[in-house]
Amino acid sequence: MKDLTPLRQWLREHKLSAFIFPSTDPHNGEYVPDYWKAREWISGFNGSAGTAVVTLTRAALWTDSRYWLAAEEQLAGTPFEVVRCRRNVATAEDLMEWIGQERSEGETLMVGIDGWCVAESYAESLQNAAAAADMMLRTDLEPTSTLWTDRPALPDRPIEIQPLEYAGETAQSKLQRIREAVRTQRANATIITQLDEIAWALNLRGSDVHCTPVFVAYLLLLPDEAVLFTNPDKITPEVASYLADLQVRTAPYGAIVQTLRQSRELRGLRFLVDPDTMNNAIFEMLSLIETIDHRPTFPDDFYANTVNIAIANQTPVVSPIVVGECPIARMKTIKNEAEIRGYRSAMRKDGVALVRFLRWLKPAVEAGGQTEISIDQKLTALRAEQPLYRDISFDTIAGYGAHGAIVHYEATPDTDIPLEPHGLLLLDSGAQYQDGTTDITRTIALGPLTEEERTDYTLVLKGHIRLAMAKFPSGSSGTQLDVLARYAMWQHGLNFLHGTGHGVGSYLNVHEGPHQIRMNYMPAPLVAGMTVTNEPGIYKAGKHGCRTENTQLITHYCDGEFGEFLQFEPLTLCPIDTTPIRMDMMLDDEIQWLNQYHRHVYNELAPLLDEEDREWLRETTQPLNP
Amino acid sequence: MKDLTPLRQWLREHKLSAFIFPSTDPHNGEYVPDYWKAREWISGFNGSAGTAVVTLTRAALWTDSRYWLAAEEQLAGTPFEVVRCRRNVATAEDLMEWIGQERSEGETLMVGIDGWCVAESYAESLQNAAAAADMMLRTDLEPTSTLWTDRPALPDRPIEIQPLEYAGETAQSKLQRIREAVRTQRANATIITQLDEIAWALNLRGSDVHCTPVFVAYLLLLPDEAVLFTNPDKITPEVASYLADLQVRTAPYGAIVQTLRQSRELRGLRFLVDPDTMNNAIFEMLSLIETIDHRPTFPDDFYANTVNIAIANQTPVVSPIVVGECPIARMKTIKNEAEIRGYRSAMRKDGVALVRFLRWLKPAVEAGGQTEISIDQKLTALRAEQPLYRDISFDTIAGYGAHGAIVHYEATPDTDIPLEPHGLLLLDSGAQYQDGTTDITRTIALGPLTEEERTDYTLVLKGHIRLAMAKFPSGSSGTQLDVLARYAMWQHGLNFLHGTGHGVGSYLNVHEGPHQIRMNYMPAPLVAGMTVTNEPGIYKAGKHGCRTENTQLITHYCDGEFGEFLQFEPLTLCPIDTTPIRMDMMLDDEIQWLNQYHRHVYNELAPLLDEEDREWLRETTQPLNP
Repeated sequence: MKDLTPLRQWLREHKLSAFIFPSTDPHNGEYVPDYWKAREWISGFNGSAGTAVVTLTRAALWTDSRYWLAAEEQLAGTPFEVVRCRRNVATAEDLMEWIGQERSEGETLMVGIDGWCVAESYAESLQNAAAAADMMLRTDLEPTSTLWTDRPALPDRPIEIQPLEYAGETAQSKLQRIREAVRTQRANATIITQLDEIAWALNLRGSDVHCTPVFVAYLLLLPDEAVLFTNPDKITPEVASYLADLQVRTAPYGAIVQTLRQSRELRGLRFLVDPDTMNNAIFEMLSLIETIDHRPTFPDDFYANTVNIAIANQTPVVSPIVVGECPIARMKTIKNEAEIRGYRSAMRKDGVALVRFLRWLKPAVEAGGQTEISIDQKLTALRAEQPLYRDISFDTIAGYGAHGAIVHYEATPDTDIPLEPHGLLLLDSGAQYQDGTTDITRTIALGPLTEEERTDYTLVLKGHIRLAMAKFPSGSSGTQLDVLARYAMWQHGLNFLHGTGHGVGSYLNVHEGPHQIRMNYMPAPLVAGMTVTNEPGIYKAGKHGCRTENTQLITHYCDGEFGEFLQFEPLTLCPIDTTPIRMDMMLDDEIQWLNQYHRHVYNELAPLLDEEDREWLRETTQPLNP
Repeated sequence: MKDLTPLRQWLREHKLSAFIFPSTDPHNGEYVPDYWKAREWISGFNGSAGTAVVTLTRAALWTDSRYWLAAEEQLAGTPFEVVRCRRNVATAEDLMEWIGQERSEGETLMVGIDGWCVAESYAESLQNAAAAADMMLRTDLEPTSTLWTDRPALPDRPIEIQPLEYAGETAQSKLQRIREAVRTQRANATIITQLDEIAWALNLRGSDVHCTPVFVAYLLLLPDEAVLFTNPDKITPEVASYLADLQVRTAPYGAIVQTLRQSRELRGLRFLVDPDTMNNAIFEMLSLIETIDHRPTFPDDFYANTVNIAIANQTPVVSPIVVGECPIARMKTIKNEAEIRGYRSAMRKDGVALVRFLRWLKPAVEAGGQTEISIDQKLTALRAEQPLYRDISFDTIAGYGAHGAIVHYEATPDTDIPLEPHGLLLLDSGAQYQDGTTDITRTIALGPLTEEERTDYTLVLKGHIRLAMAKFPSGSSGTQLDVLARYAMWQHGLNFLHGTGHGVGSYLNVHEGPHQIRMNYMPAPLVAGMTVTNEPGIYKAGKHGCRTENTQLITHYCDGEFGEFLQFEPLTLCPIDTTPIRMDMMLDDEIQWLNQYHRHVYNELAPLLDEEDREWLRETTQPLNP
């Protein structure tokens, strides 16, 4: 819809001066179902991140450096100007300043955003930025339900049960642990809005979201029962009976509004809420649930002193909302034995597919006719032959040469280029197997390299190894360890601007928080049983990109006076290309680590390979001499 | 005053159930003048950290592991029980829980603390903890003014002007920069309560506080003038004329109360306040200054919707207080050229004294009769011979053998032990010269060592060097770099529980924030011109302690696509004992760094030494072979 006239008329009818369309949905997921792609509907821009704003006279789209060129191409000839922003979300201050340019002195502009499609904390930052600029934000009006006539339907694919063999813990046990954890935060109820958290808690999976085995729903968790709000068509008789056994009632997806607005049984409950993930609409409804005022009574003479009045006013009133992290976020990051067994199985399968692919790759490139897309198809086909394969876990990044420097590159028929027998191919890919999710990056020399390519490849590898070798106290944060992956390249004035590592779900989201390894502060502690990737990179625009990534498991290292120390165990089983390494830059302990990793890869995969693949792997994993 | 009867009578008169005596003063300094040692007065405990609480029937003192034994000795036979706490400050929750044990059902206990001697943020946490436990906190009553009859006087030593030659920037220029920085935070006034910030801003120094060249005062900074509240006896005619030229009025120290309570000229001002450093009494008085309500007016139909009412209630009212970091905290950490020149001069003088000391030490220990205290006196005497020497910068830590494992050890006549020609001596010391402050730790082998001592010494040195060699993007936090000092010892399951580095003032506090290098999160960015120490350690209770510390300057390394990169330049000039090093554990780049550092130390100090000291230094700094 490039014609903004109907929207502007709607704005005038509702006394709004502007409407903001973010790229998020009610479940704050990484991939958004088409039903919620309102920003794409209004602007035509289809990148994964961007914020559109339409005022009565102007329109603009904020997006980050990944999408600057694509947005300008897609929006040429439309009313939208492209505003380049540095982060993947436009700051509230920037948006309000731009909108405020239309404000006359003394006027209070009213700005709208759909409270369902924005996290409470972002809505709050918009409210504060609006107030600071003499504007007001409304989150209770939205134009799509009346104006978006060809809106796609909500997904209705069936829900599946994740077998206990892979889940490792019954949903009953999980719900009990969640309720206990909610109580330790002085709450007794919660609403789970993140789809992977619902899937994990109930041991259910779906296929509503791209690359991610989840289904669209809300889960209301009360002290003694639970309500799953989801499209009834998705619930097979098997799932219905499973949920009944769990004491989980079901209700239509949209019924959550009525429940929160009218249900008397919610009165007096205290809801644990994470404003960074819960959408503003649910948050507002929760905050209006009636509660009991527990304000303490003060002695009679207390108010004689003005300082005491100030104290009394600061005393908090009990609210129906307790702000805190949803305990599931952390619970699901700590994998149980069945899940770890599942990862090892999935990684062996992935390793077999990758060895077959890598052995095939160089001769195929030399023979000619291969492109970024064709090799991605080959790799996906090899993975799909493996048992329990369900899907890829994210869109493959196959970037050859200069394309390797585009961090979120995804080859399209327009950008696809042939692979030639020289230079570096960056290949970041992964799969969803029912027993585990994989995520791996290898950078492969397709033939001769420049000295700069070899240096950068070696710096990245040194960073990967320095981090992989680290031992650290249990509870350390990823921020503390991040420098290890960067130390070598920092000596050369080089850096990379993405995170170093993220959690990986167990047949769930390939990007799983809250723990991360990155430069900016991520307080979530690293503990045994977590998965985390290790993926430093160097990107030279117009030249090449390198990244080396393993998915790792955090395991026990030793106990002592300073408590438990942890270490990383690489789960990924795939050789690292040794041909580009500059041996003069490698320290002895780094070479030892690489040889040990390759021995492990060979030992795990050799029994599963045919003669020729095994021989190729044996040669590829030969130890290097210091 | 071990007899708590008068205090308890005072509590009853004021309807209080308990009074809390923290170890802090109105200026939130590291060393507290005797005038404010109320916790010591009431309990008799003289450690640097501890919180005393007296109720109508019980009394207790919270202190951390450094002082557990000392507190139990000092408080034996008194009404105070010692409560062991893990941090250096008792948590608000722990205190309130202990006090609340006396509470009967339905009763609201009133607890007191002197608002002058507690930071606002800590007072707020006490208020919250009290409210959560059905208690109330009052900060506007205190017993010392009536009950503490032999209270020491406030310090009255004269104030000195720090010459521009060492300060490098006029006070006029500093005040202008501070006012601009306050305005960028949307405030137009501030009250500076930290003594080193006042000294820095005005280029004045004093001698009111142990080891620290500051004077007791408040500085009220208004848009067009400033008021220095300090004891008039401290102001010499020279300082009076200097302050008049600066447009800084003076007023008696205690007059700040009247000024804040009654001065009409403060109405409508917005005060920048850091609740982590400003005391609660000043904060409360500021918050009661009348201001103008800037609440926006909403359209007439706005309140039709309950959600909008919620929005309107969230809209902030303008307060006389703007919470933010005092800009001086950061300004003074970035040293100008004159200050850097001063550090280099101070470090050369310190280096000469240290070389003379170290050359003397081993033969003196072999000759017998030396103790921890005697060698400290020797070192201080050698420093005192140097030009512009004023004082030590903190109490020397000279810990021999097992004493080296006590992190904050200070030898007293009771604990002092003779040094023998074997084992490790940990020596952490520093000086205040008028041109710069020094802080250095060396661990010295007095003779043969155990294998464990050599291993630990080498792990500490590897950590020191790995951090010293780091290059990093400008703006990195110390938390990001901290692991570099720990990586080697973490491989052995060892750690140290203090910070790795702190800023050092320019003839000011030896511990200067806000930047630090430590495990827990310290967001203050590292930028060029800052000083920061590098001091990893290993401590084995009952055996030995090792620490190697240089004070470093952060300097420019290179510019490039990723912005500016920085590096550390060691300012400290003193050889590192090479005799304990296990060469089999050292990597090539570590040995190169050590050889280069020793060459630098020799080149800087040799011209200043006599023949014999120079020859000793030449031998001591011989390069090691990999």
